[in-house]
Amino acid sequence: MEGDPTLQLRVFDLNCWAIRYLSKRRQERVQLIGDMLRREGFDLVLLQEVWSEQDYSDLKAKLRGCYPFSHCFRSGVIGSGLCVFSKFPILDTLLYQYSLNGYPYMLQHGDWFCGKSVGLVPAWGSRLLCPTPSRQLHAEYCREKDAYLPHRLVQAWELAQFIRHTSKAADVVLLGGDLNMHPEDVGIRLLRGWTGLRDAFTEATRFEGCKDGCTLVPSNCFTVKTELLPFPLGIRIDYILYKAVSRFTVKCEELKTTMGTAPGADIPLSDHEAVMATLHIQRQGRAAGAALDTAELALADVVTEARTEVDVGLQAAQRQRYSTGRMAVLALLLLLLQAVAALGTLAGLAAEQPFPKLSFSLLAFLAVGVLLLATGLHLFHTIEVKMLQGTEEQMRMALRVLRERP
Amino acid sequence: MEGDPTLQLRVFDLNCWAIRYLSKRRQERVQLIGDMLRREGFDLVLLQEVWSEQDYSDLKAKLRGCYPFSHCFRSGVIGSGLCVFSKFPILDTLLYQYSLNGYPYMLQHGDWFCGKSVGLVPAWGSRLLCPTPSRQLHAEYCREKDAYLPHRLVQAWELAQFIRHTSKAADVVLLGGDLNMHPEDVGIRLLRGWTGLRDAFTEATRFEGCKDGCTLVPSNCFTVKTELLPFPLGIRIDYILYKAVSRFTVKCEELKTTMGTAPGADIPLSDHEAVMATLHIQRQGRAAGAALDTAELALADVVTEARTEVDVGLQAAQRQRYSTGRMAVLALLLLLLQAVAALGTLAGLAAEQPFPKLSFSLLAFLAVGVLLLATGLHLFHTIEVKMLQGTEEQMRMALRVLRERP
Repeated sequence: MEGDPTLQLRVFDLNCWAIRYLSKRRQERVQLIGDMLRREGFDLVLLQEVWSEQDYSDLKAKLRGCYPFSHCFRSGVIGSGLCVFSKFPILDTLLYQYSLNGYPYMLQHGDWFCGKSVGLVPAWGSRLLCPTPSRQLHAEYCREKDAYLPHRLVQAWELAQFIRHTSKAADVVLLGGDLNMHPEDVGIRLLRGWTGLRDAFTEATRFEGCKDGCTLVPSNCFTVKTELLPFPLGIRIDYILYKAVSRFTVKCEELKTTMGTAPGADIPLSDHEAVMATLHIQRQGRAAGAALDTAELALADVVTEARTEVDVGLQAAQRQRYSTGRMAVLALLLLLLQAVAALGTLAGLAAEQPFPKLSFSLLAFLAVGVLLLATGLHLFHTIEVKMLQGTEEQMRMALRVLRERP
Repeated sequence: MEGDPTLQLRVFDLNCWAIRYLSKRRQERVQLIGDMLRREGFDLVLLQEVWSEQDYSDLKAKLRGCYPFSHCFRSGVIGSGLCVFSKFPILDTLLYQYSLNGYPYMLQHGDWFCGKSVGLVPAWGSRLLCPTPSRQLHAEYCREKDAYLPHRLVQAWELAQFIRHTSKAADVVLLGGDLNMHPEDVGIRLLRGWTGLRDAFTEATRFEGCKDGCTLVPSNCFTVKTELLPFPLGIRIDYILYKAVSRFTVKCEELKTTMGTAPGADIPLSDHEAVMATLHIQRQGRAAGAALDTAELALADVVTEARTEVDVGLQAAQRQRYSTGRMAVLALLLLLLQAVAALGTLAGLAAEQPFPKLSFSLLAFLAVGVLLLATGLHLFHTIEVKMLQGTEEQMRMALRVLRERP
């Protein structure tokens, strides 16, 4: 960028759905993804849900020639699933883990085990630093009764804060990933409003792909058709967002999505469609950051809406903390009662053994189990309450700053 | 700062040791701390280990007049214990939680429950942004056989990375806190080398306080004397570090510590001594950041040393992951064996009941307990392995960048 004031940047983003033993035709699809990436020669590739280290190593070996730089972010029990391939040197990385990420006992959803996080990759030498968080927010399992909404909002807020604080000296910020939110959702509006990021789909000069830019579509043979019943066209939850921070401008020249199958193959790359953007970065005049100020009134409304939802989540978490605490106390009382009864029998206060030994010890084991479980859950919900309170407080601070500005 | 090119900044830092029910004479000391802060009128106060929300609220109420802005960071089961009081507006905050923080089963050390983290507080309006992380690294319990060293190094590295990535647009960076490391430890050298932060104690023009700047001293009646036996003068583990990033310079005019008792009282403020620095910030010429380059060769050595220690921790974590996994498999096998035996009895294959019922069910409960515990520990050590691998990889990347520079 030093000599040339313009740069064309081709970005690829895909949720790869590469879960060992669970994802259909995984190895075949990972191969297809590698072939396509090698053929197309993007500048920057952001992949999510690459859960197997073997798949990452295979991709890395295959793509070494055209993408000499790569990084895989590690976190959680099975990893973050995030990896980045780049034509430009990756000089440094930073991983930020969300403070809340679902519940460990919701095994069927599994989000808690994934260690969801945002990876930051500054690239393009030292002058045009470009942090490129590629990540995925907590999945939405039921749109009507969405118990995870407060967690997703905390994550959207933390992501926005992370971008704001790490991108101050950057020229261009690029965020790509499966955000698990529809374009009109409060979380997306919060993220976009608070960071000033622009949506490549709405800004693109040319668009080619699924109707409305959808990335989960019924024509993809791997999508769960029942989940898409309320949305006959599909839904858009994978995004490429961007902004210019300092003396640069960014324009999205073209946005493309795959359309149900991989180019030149009869199966899709994943259950999600890939999003591909061609961005035109130019060094000139004032940056687009100023657009943020004009929208600040609307932003205050979005932050207020998000804060209300976080408050609802906080109340639910407080109720759960209370009920698990009460259960732990009850289990402890039962144990104490049993101990007193057992001691009484031992001391010969009771004339004869009042309970059958087997059921007595089974009950004691049950009480210990309930005590341990309830205590664990109580600790977990205590952390949840703290984090929701912290986010609520930060949002209140943000609202005060927004309102006090002239 | 807009009009005036110089600023004198008085910073106070203290590990308050305010743990409910555990810390001696807590309420009296919190009152003393509040009195001293109100009397002295610092510009910025960084407190750690304020674990009780009540203590924070009391301090906040007392200090409202002279420190109109404050923030308490929330995280972990019992909170982060971090709070900041400031004369300058606190416009925004960000909390970063370390990925590793001890072991949940080391109840006697308790670090895992504290959610140790670094809080970022940009202050001084929008021109002179000053992120002020105030935090505390994993405590050191045994200097000779320090099992936590790898965790502490991961935290030191994450803290350094966090500061580097969030401070790029800042003019002055200030880090205050109990770092749980001696000045010559590899973690401190890594943190200082990788961020370019300077130590107020070694840079101060005037110093007044305990010999060698020690902050855990035998003359403080709350310190554990046996822990300080190898260090007759005490140890220095509380720091104020700073650097100027852009067109500013920072100089430490004066550094003071309390000396075993609170000023004008007969008990200390805490088991740690308070550190108080007077910094002189000036807008001019080139920043001190350049000093980093000259020390890069030494820095590579420090990063290599830290990487070796992280490697040692990684091997230990891998061993523990393996042994807990093996134990879980053994418990599962025992359960299966019992199930087969029970089914055999039920199906009438065995002529008579081969085991006494009570010990049979007790054994089953024991196996379930061991299975759950070992699985939990296995998951925990899996996360630990991932995070240590991730840090090791980042350090390798840093070494490559350091070596490739001309």
